[in-house]
Parts: sequence; structure tokens; C-alpha cells
Amino acid sequence: MPCKSVILTGDRTTGPLHLGHYAGSLRNRVALQHSHRQYLLLADAQALTDNAHDPARIARNVIEVATDYLAVGIDPAVTTICVQSALPALAELTLLYLNLVTVARLERNPTIKDEIQARGFGRDIPAGFLCYPAAQAADITAFRATLVPVGEDQAPLIEQTNEIVRRLNRQVGHDLLPEARSLIPEIGRLPGVDGRAKMSKSGGNALPLSASDAEIAASVQRMYTDPGHLRASDPGRVEGNVVFTYLDAFDPDPEEVAGLKAHYRRGGLGDAVLKGRLTGILCDLLGPIRERRAAIARDRDHVMDVLRTGTARAQALTTQTRDAVRDALGLFRL
Amino acid sequence: MPCKSVILTGDRTTGPLHLGHYAGSLRNRVALQHSHRQYLLLADAQALTDNAHDPARIARNVIEVATDYLAVGIDPAVTTICVQSALPALAELTLLYLNLVTVARLERNPTIKDEIQARGFGRDIPAGFLCYPAAQAADITAFRATLVPVGEDQAPLIEQTNEIVRRLNRQVGHDLLPEARSLIPEIGRLPGVDGRAKMSKSGGNALPLSASDAEIAASVQRMYTDPGHLRASDPGRVEGNVVFTYLDAFDPDPEEVAGLKAHYRRGGLGDAVLKGRLTGILCDLLGPIRERRAAIARDRDHVMDVLRTGTARAQALTTQTRDAVRDALGLFRL
Repeated sequence: MPCKSVILTGDRTTGPLHLGHYAGSLRNRVALQHSHRQYLLLADAQALTDNAHDPARIARNVIEVATDYLAVGIDPAVTTICVQSALPALAELTLLYLNLVTVARLERNPTIKDEIQARGFGRDIPAGFLCYPAAQAADITAFRATLVPVGEDQAPLIEQTNEIVRRLNRQVGHDLLPEARSLIPEIGRLPGVDGRAKMSKSGGNALPLSASDAEIAASVQRMYTDPGHLRASDPGRVEGNVVFTYLDAFDPDPEEVAGLKAHYRRGGLGDAVLKGRLTGILCDLLGPIRERRAAIARDRDHVMDVLRTGTARAQALTTQTRDAVRDALGLFRL
Repeated sequence: MPCKSVILTGDRTTGPLHLGHYAGSLRNRVALQHSHRQYLLLADAQALTDNAHDPARIARNVIEVATDYLAVGIDPAVTTICVQSALPALAELTLLYLNLVTVARLERNPTIKDEIQARGFGRDIPAGFLCYPAAQAADITAFRATLVPVGEDQAPLIEQTNEIVRRLNRQVGHDLLPEARSLIPEIGRLPGVDGRAKMSKSGGNALPLSASDAEIAASVQRMYTDPGHLRASDPGRVEGNVVFTYLDAFDPDPEEVAGLKAHYRRGGLGDAVLKGRLTGILCDLLGPIRERRAAIARDRDHVMDVLRTGTARAQALTTQTRDAVRDALGLFRL
């Protein structure tokens, strides 16, 4: 049997996860966990690079995100769930890698440039934020990951990681660390229920995984469709119609969705019918997740056990990689 | 008895130490070690920030510098000698602190600006080098140091550390970490034997602590005096005369030196007499150091024992500080 690819992925612990995370990554992780060796990193240290003023929120959400993982079906027996800030080897590798990359290269990283702009940092970029591509390279290489699921906008971070890997491998004269490939999901980013490009808790346009049926129905009710589609009998636009985008993402019957699109385009199909269908689908999807989530949340000790076991496993692996890198470079050994 | 001040100091392990280090810092450390709690950090991780291409040299010199410490009279029973790269808590604190300081602030640091220029980095500054003030803040605070011996040009680094300390203390609402004071040595930097401002091994104008009597004599012989002082009977200049600078630094009899200066100024005192005197003083100083150094270097196991004991003590202390910082900030605890 060939060696399984190693996947590293995870989430910044800035808040509980939502339907956008489910569509873009969580369900892929559940699907991939048996055919791959998978590590999920609760990236609290990375979350601090732009949340240093509110570390308590970042800490609180470690448990929340872990609970989300378990609720959607991540199996801690096959997927290692671990806490980034409890892995000192990641910090050590980050500092080593920062010596292998120039400030100018970090500033040129397109992902970093975009995020600096999106966050409105201006000249007041926290140094940790500028440096996080090196931290991400530490994460990826410490787990010897070869496959990293990322959005298209994050692909330059994988390129940066591979530059560091090549630089290191060249310096030590052998393939000490593997390069990683981006795994870009087929389904792009799910828009917010209001039609804005990104679903986010802070944007108020996200459906949390714990949403009740009533919250789901209310969110779908508010969903952006085609503003020109005033009467059911009018022809309607499918492109940019959030209800159809969601049906494409979640409806288990794509043929039926194709038929609905044709009907909507020629007129005679009301938004209410579509919204009713979507509400049903989302309630069916989120209902069991919400119930599992509530049960898991009542057993905090179990979640902590999962985190302790996963983090211990990750400590062993990341420490081993750190030692291999140090020894290959010929650093001092006590 | 009042609490002893805590001193943190140390050296980048880029090469064995020389007479310049002895004059500017080593002898102070020997003098201070009984009245203060003193930690000496073998700063191999910091040395890598601009020596990532040659880690083996940095590693090799950890033992060399430790041997120098023991040879000059650092007593490992009272001074803790430890290896920076073996203290993961320093890396963890560094990453935390990088979130509390902006890129612009690091770029404005006068010490960093000067050193970037001195090293000719141009735009190709390793990110680790730009970030090293945060690493130094981690070092200082992890040891809860209150007194940091630095050259005048390094004082801005202590200011940067204290900014981070104040920011942290303000955020957590109490004096979690102490601020540190610079301890600027009375004797400024010893010039090279060729009269250039800085004695350095790479500049070829340094006297290593292991120099033989013949090497000492040859170095003093080449020393820059007063180029206008052609005959012994001519009046000579004392200012900028390296032989007098060295006599000021090392002659145990300052009154006698004052007399020699007066004689030299009015003429009638040859360079050969002064150089002979200085050679004798330096041979008396370095002879016993050289012999102790050679004996210690033959017992590598002893040096390793000292490093292991000191580093274990430092690990306990720095881990404790890391935990205190994490807990005060409310970071996640497994």
C-alpha cells in the first residue's frame, strides 16, 4: 500500500464555524480523513497575529472550533486535532525560517498584501502578521504535510512554504522536507446570506453550524435572489442568485436543481418555492450537526481529552521534525 | 537582604571572544556575578539571524564562547550559562511579542537601522534580523532581567523591550513583567590593535583570549601610536594613540599612566618603552586566562556539563515566565 498523503489544515480560532466553513472545507475533511493522514490545527497562535488585543476570545474559541469539528463528523481516531500554541516546535521552526526569507519577500506576498489592505493596517502592521507566512511554513513542514487545502487566494502561502523548503533542502544537500501542494476546493467560497462575497460572523451574514430551524428559515427568507424578479411569472436570473448558489452547494439532487434553474429563467417559478426547498435542505443538513454539537458541548471533558491526545501526538511529530531540521543544519546539540 | 538585581547578558556565538570582549564586558561579569543573579546567554539563535548560511560555525562557537567564559573566571556555581536555541520558551515569547510591535516600529529602531547598513543588507534583510529586537525582549523578560549590560549603540533595544513590557502590563492590568535598565560600561569600546574603532576577529585586528606571548608582543608592536612622533625626543599625541587607550584600559597603575602621558606629550619618551610596558601587562593578564582556557578546552565533557546544568535551570525559569505570560493574557491552556 502506498504511503498516504499527509494533509494539514485547520482554522484560526476567532469564532465558531459556520455554513461557509462546512461547504468550503469541513465536509471535504470528513470525506478525506480515511484516505489520508489528516492533521487539523486549531490555529490560536496565528489568530493572535491580528487579535493580540483580545486573546481571551481566541482561547475561548479553541474549544468551540474543536466542538464544531467533532459535530460535523471529524473522527479523532483517524484525524489528529491539535492546538497550535501548545506546540513549541512550531515557534522554534518559525524563528529559524524567518532567517531564510527576506522582509521584501514577505511584503511582496500577494496574500499578505491583500490581507493587510483588507484589515486596514496601513503602516501599523503587527510584525507577527507580516511574518505569518513563515509560521505557516513551519506548520506545514513540521507535520511533513504534502497536501494543504486552501482557498485560491491562499495559494501564494504554499509557494512561500515551498521556497523555504527548497532553500533548506539545497543548504543541507538532500530532501530533508517535502514540498507541499495546494488542494483548492471545487466549490468556491460560499457567499453570505445577504449575497456579499464572503460569509463571516463579523459580517452578520453567516449561518452558524448551531443554527436552529427557525434561524435557518429566517436567513433563507432574507436571502438575496434576483431584484428584477418581482412576480413568480417573471423570468428570473440564476447567476448571482444566492438561493441557487446555495442549492448548487447543498442540494443532493443536481438534476432537479438544473430543472429548477431552467424553470426560473423562463418564468413561472416563485422565490418562495425555491426558498422553501433550500430551507428544508439546510434544516436536514444542520439539524443532526446541531444536535451532535449540543451533546458534545455538554461533555467538555471529552473535547479536552481529544485535544490532549491529538496535541500529544502532534508534539511528538513536530519535535521530531524540529530535531531533524536542527541536526541537518548542524545546530548545536546539548 | 534585598532581592538581587537580575542581569541578563551574553554573546552571539560567531567566534571565540577576544580582548575587546574582556575589556568591555567579561571582566564586569566576573566582578558582578557575586552581587547579582547573572545569566549568560550563548546567543546561537540570534547569531543565525544573519548567519543562516553557516549554522555549523555558530554551533561550533557555542563551546568556544563557553570555554572563554570559564577561562576568564565566570563561576558556573553562581552564574547560569545557557544555550539560547535550547530554550523553546524564548521562541514562543518572541512570536507572542511580534504581535505587539509593528513592522514600522522595528524599522525605526536606530540599532537595527545602523546594523542593517553595517551589514550591507540593502532590501534583502532577513526577516529574522528585522525581528530580533522582539527576540531580545523575549530573552530579557523570560529571565525577568532588570539590568542588561549593553553598549551605548544597543540602548534602543532595551527601550524596545520596555515598550513591549509596558504594553503587556497595561493589557493584563498588573506588573506582570519588570522593565529593564541598560547598564552601559564605563570603559567604551576598545579599538582594534590597528586603531580602527572596533576590534573584531573578521577585521583581523583582534587579540584572542588564547593569544600567546609572542602574538601579544607582535600585536602591540604593530599598534598605531602617533604618526608624527618620529623620534623619541619629539612631543607625542596621547589622544587617539592606541597604546595609551590600552594602558588606560588595562594598566593596574593609573597614576603611573598619567605620568607617562605627561612625559610623552612633552617629548623624550619612545614608543618602544610604552609598547614594552603594554606587552608585559597584557601578557600578565592573558597568560593565566590562556592556560586556564587550554586546560578547560581539554575537558569538553566538563563544559558540556556546565551547559546542560545551566540550560536546565534556564529552561525551568523561562518556561515559568512563558506560562505566566500566557495565563495572564488568558491564552488557551490544555
